[in-house]
This record gives sequence, structure tokens and C-alpha cells, in this order.
Amino acid sequence: MQAGLTVAILGATGAVGTRMLAQLAQSTIPVKAVKLLASSRSAGKSLTFRGQSLTVEATTAASFAGVDLVLASAGSMVSKQFLPVAVEQGAVCVDNTSAFRMVPTVPLVVPEVNAGALREHHGIIANPNCSTIQMMVALNPIRQAVGLKQIIVSTYQAASGAGQSGLNEFYQEARDYLNGQQMTAKIFPTKGDQRHYPLAFNLLPQIDVLEDNLYSHEEWKMIHETKKIMLGDMNANDIKVTATCVRVPVPFSHGESIWIDTGRPDATVAQLHQALATAPGVVLQDDPQHQLYPQPLNATGTRATYVGRIRPDLENPGAFNLWVVADNLLKGAAWNAVQIAECLVAEGLIHAVA
Amino acid sequence: MQAGLTVAILGATGAVGTRMLAQLAQSTIPVKAVKLLASSRSAGKSLTFRGQSLTVEATTAASFAGVDLVLASAGSMVSKQFLPVAVEQGAVCVDNTSAFRMVPTVPLVVPEVNAGALREHHGIIANPNCSTIQMMVALNPIRQAVGLKQIIVSTYQAASGAGQSGLNEFYQEARDYLNGQQMTAKIFPTKGDQRHYPLAFNLLPQIDVLEDNLYSHEEWKMIHETKKIMLGDMNANDIKVTATCVRVPVPFSHGESIWIDTGRPDATVAQLHQALATAPGVVLQDDPQHQLYPQPLNATGTRATYVGRIRPDLENPGAFNLWVVADNLLKGAAWNAVQIAECLVAEGLIHAVA
Repeated sequence: MQAGLTVAILGATGAVGTRMLAQLAQSTIPVKAVKLLASSRSAGKSLTFRGQSLTVEATTAASFAGVDLVLASAGSMVSKQFLPVAVEQGAVCVDNTSAFRMVPTVPLVVPEVNAGALREHHGIIANPNCSTIQMMVALNPIRQAVGLKQIIVSTYQAASGAGQSGLNEFYQEARDYLNGQQMTAKIFPTKGDQRHYPLAFNLLPQIDVLEDNLYSHEEWKMIHETKKIMLGDMNANDIKVTATCVRVPVPFSHGESIWIDTGRPDATVAQLHQALATAPGVVLQDDPQHQLYPQPLNATGTRATYVGRIRPDLENPGAFNLWVVADNLLKGAAWNAVQIAECLVAEGLIHAVA
Repeated sequence: MQAGLTVAILGATGAVGTRMLAQLAQSTIPVKAVKLLASSRSAGKSLTFRGQSLTVEATTAASFAGVDLVLASAGSMVSKQFLPVAVEQGAVCVDNTSAFRMVPTVPLVVPEVNAGALREHHGIIANPNCSTIQMMVALNPIRQAVGLKQIIVSTYQAASGAGQSGLNEFYQEARDYLNGQQMTAKIFPTKGDQRHYPLAFNLLPQIDVLEDNLYSHEEWKMIHETKKIMLGDMNANDIKVTATCVRVPVPFSHGESIWIDTGRPDATVAQLHQALATAPGVVLQDDPQHQLYPQPLNATGTRATYVGRIRPDLENPGAFNLWVVADNLLKGAAWNAVQIAECLVAEGLIHAVA
């Protein structure tokens, strides 16, 4: 029998943290004990793991003694502060923040695409951005079976990408609007930015800060994370990528309208269907005759990435449009992190410290 | 003094019809009298035009006697039935439905782009699809100043595109969801189709019916209307166009994420800004430093097309991403129709029958 692991969840009370705990409970990871870590504000709260009530502790450097696996989703600053400490004490960390994603020696992993990169880990593995992950799951089978030269993506991203506080603000705005009240925005488009706008009944073409090159940081992530995951180098140009990221008034699950050039003028929808039908993590949902296609309401609460509306670009042979939906908090965050941990266990890349 | 026109609004009680009446009231068109026409179900209702209460009449062939101008938005079947009758009696018709858009001898007009096509009219002028119109207003100045070879568009379309009944269903769903009730869908994605799905807190990648070539009819319209408006031929291939149309849980104003290839590798954002800053019907709203960009909540109730988030595709010289928003019921329907009528009057292309 494999020794059980002591698992710490850093940011345990957040929208992603609570789901990490639930995904861990349903995972194949042998768990000996769970530590729930958060800010001092959340210390003392209780959460349930496999029927057992656990108390949330305030995070300190001492919290990681005896911890084998850290699942982190408490913000970049917290990850930068604590994950090196945890690694020093022998833990392996799967980090859902952007803190270490672009460090060349840190694997950035979508298990369906580049699980092999885990073998190179030095204690920290980065979970990609939510919108990147579902695009990788959908496009990698096409890349392998047919080819992939160019990606142009427009996202339709859910409110919960801004965490529980963003979700609460969104619901309150929706109630206020329907009751004829003024909407009050303090979080969207991006917490801490200068201006805030209502998301309810609106569209916000800004996710994360807008940078000097005119792209939002979310768009930057989609471009460079794609290259690192698929090509091993954040600046490789074998696959061209551009992105427009838009927040939409949907609570859960991101949609993506993706145009790709496979570079194969003779490629067919049938070939793409065949590649996707048996691809890991993908549910092909593409039956126009019966009006079947991916929808956020159906994807929410599931681990899969749904792909549909696959159409050839009628004037660019080898190019296609597709529509991809996945639960941003599960495959886009909590499940992908736990899935990485499952791979680490399966490959013998993590061991009990004690 | 110019003789006043007798104007009939066909479909006067609908989401577009009521706005046609309001836009007509604010227009430069010399109006002698207004006739409000609708189905027998709506007959007897009252609407106000320039302070005067008018009664809605049931539409019959006799309704068009003495009418100089018809603004029609009562569905394709109604337009096909009555507009030829109205033309026979001497009226000029601006039709907001898709009934005649692809008839080669019927001008399909966005006044900022191809007002000249009005001179060829034979009594019926077609108003383009809402999502096409705002894209044309945004892209034509770029086409003229820089060039335009290819368009890849993803839409974020508002619930009101499905009319007042769609809007009502959407609001009811939103209330039900927030109250923890089951949502009931009878209209979206498309009235009369086999299956219906909730739009509130969801995304529906189907607008109008899905056709045998896998594209939705809305996507088909965006492709072929663009070619007819910009190139004069619905099948011309000087500009390649592909589209993905998605209904989003927003009541008013469509968003569009548009990727274009200008065909000019040396083109700059500054050139696009310059072209758009003085373009008719365009409000350039592109100041990332101050987080200014187009939003449905700000566009709603106005006649303009808002353009922002203009960024060069960092790996495809001459290609750009942009974000375009306009009120789908005004510039996308009622205002564009009344604006066409203003052009007809200004060009002497319409005259009082009596």
C-alpha cells in the first residue's frame, strides 16, 4: 500500500480552494491528512473533507512542516511568499496563480497535453490560466492529428474567474438592475484597477490589467502560455497566437470562439471530429441537426472540455472555426491542479516527506 | 417647402417598430402623417408620435393607399406579403427583415458605406442584419484608408435581437435563476426551432437556424451581406469573411471581436485611429491607459458605433484585433432604416404619392 500524502490547500476558502478540496476528495490521490490554509481573516472557518470537518488555519511559514503536496490558489503574492518555503521543507506545489508560470524551469502543465513536462519539476508546477487550459485540451488533438499553425481566439469569460467576491458583486448587480436600482461596481473589470464598471447585462473587454503593448494581461497569458505548453518556449513562433478576452455576464464556465489554421489545406471537419471524439478530457458536442453544442449551463460542475460548432472557413482551406466551453473553476483551475497531482503520484514524482 | 410624406410603420408595436417611430420623430424627414400597422392582435393599441396619440391598425393590402414611405419590421413573411403591394401603390419601402436582402436588384445599405446604391432602388431597400451593420460602419473607414483583405468575427449578441418576446423571456429567466427557480425557455436560441435553451447566465452559439453547411443563418448573413455591401456582390471574394455568432445574456447592444487583415504589412494602430476618429457614425473609444473601451451599457440608446481595443496582431504584420459595440435596435435596425429614409429624401429619391 502506498503511503498517504499530507496535502495543504493554500487559499482553501476561495472559489477555487473549496473546489480543490472537493476535487481532492474525489481523486485517486492517497490522502493521509489535509491542512486548510488561508488568510488570518478566514482562520477558524470549517470545511468538510470526506465527511470530516476541518478547521482553516492562518498561513505561516511553519504551516508547511510535514506537508507533501500544496495546492495553491490564494493569489500570486501569497504563492511567491510561501511556495519556496514549502518546497524547501520537501513539499511539491501545484500553483494555480500566475506567479511562476513563465519561469523557464517551472513546468506549465495541462495533463492531456504535456504531462511529460512534470518530470522536469523542481518542486513547483504551474497550473495555466483558465482560458488557456480549455483551449489547449481542445486544440492539442487537432494539432496532433492534423496540424496547427495559427490561433485567433475570442473569449467569453465567466464572472467567477474574479473569485467569490467577483461572483457576489455580479449577482448583486443583476438583482439591482432587475429591481430598477443603480448598479455598484467595485471589482470588475479588474480588482485594484482605477475604474470599475458593472458586469451584469454588460460586456467588459478587459480581463486583468491593460499593458503597454495594448493587450490585456489575460490576452498576454493566452498567447505566451499556449506557446510554452505546446512548444516548450513562451516565445516560440511555430504556432502564431492572438487573443481578445472579454468578461461576460455568466457566473460559471468560459466560452471560446476559436479560429485555427491547421496548415493542411485538405483537412476536413470529419478529421477534426475523429481527433476529438477519442481525445482525453474532451466531450465532442457537435450535432447541428439536433442543435447540440457546448453551453456554460451544461458544462458547469463537470471536468470535461466541450467542443462543438466545428466549421470549415469557407474561403481559407485548412482553417476552421470552433466553439469550446469548460468550467473555469474545475478544468480551468481546481480539477487541472488536482489532475496534475494525480499524475505526479502515478509517475512517482511525489513522495511522502515523513 | 418640401411636401410632407405619409409614413407607414409595419410592425409598429415591436422592439424595432417602436424605435422606428421614435427615430422618425427625431429625424429630418418631413412627415405629414404616420400610419401604425401591425397584426390584428395589436390593432387598437396606441403609440405617441411627436406628442400625438396614434392608433395601431391591422395590416391589409388596402393599408398602403397614399403611403409614401414604409418602414417594415414585422418579419420576413409579412414583408414578402405586403411590400410588393405597397411598391405597386407608389411607396418606397425600407425593409428591416431578411426577405429581400439577397435579391440582386435590391440595394442593401449602410448609409456610411454605400449610400450610392440607393440610386438603383426599385421601391424596396433592404436594411442589413444588425450584426453586419455595426461591423461595416467600423471597418469601412479602415478599408478606405488602409485596406481590407480578410475578416474573422466573433459576435456577442444581445437578447433584444429576438424581439420584445425574447427580451421578456430573458428577464424572466434571470429573475427565476436568482430566485433559485427553474428557468423555462420557449424562444431562444431561435423561435420555432426544435429545442430551446435558457439564455440567462448562459451562452448560446446559435442565432437563427443551423444550415447544412454547418453555419448558422446569422453567420451566413454576416458573410454574404458584408460582400454585397462592400463589394456589390454577395459572392465576391476580394474580402474573405468568416463568422461565429453567439447570443449572450445582455439585453441591448451587440459586441463584436473582429480580427482583420488589412493586406498592408506596414499598417499601424495610429493609421486605424486616424481613419476612425473622423469616420461618420463612429465613436473611437480606445484609451487603454484610462480603461476606456466600448461597452453595451454605454452604447444603448445611442445611434453611434463604438470602436476600441485596437491592437496589432503581434505575429501577423498588417493584421489587427478590434472590439466594436452598437445598439442593435438602433444602428442595427431602427436608426439605420430611418437614416436610409433620410438619405432617400436628401437625394430626391422619394416623393409624396398624392
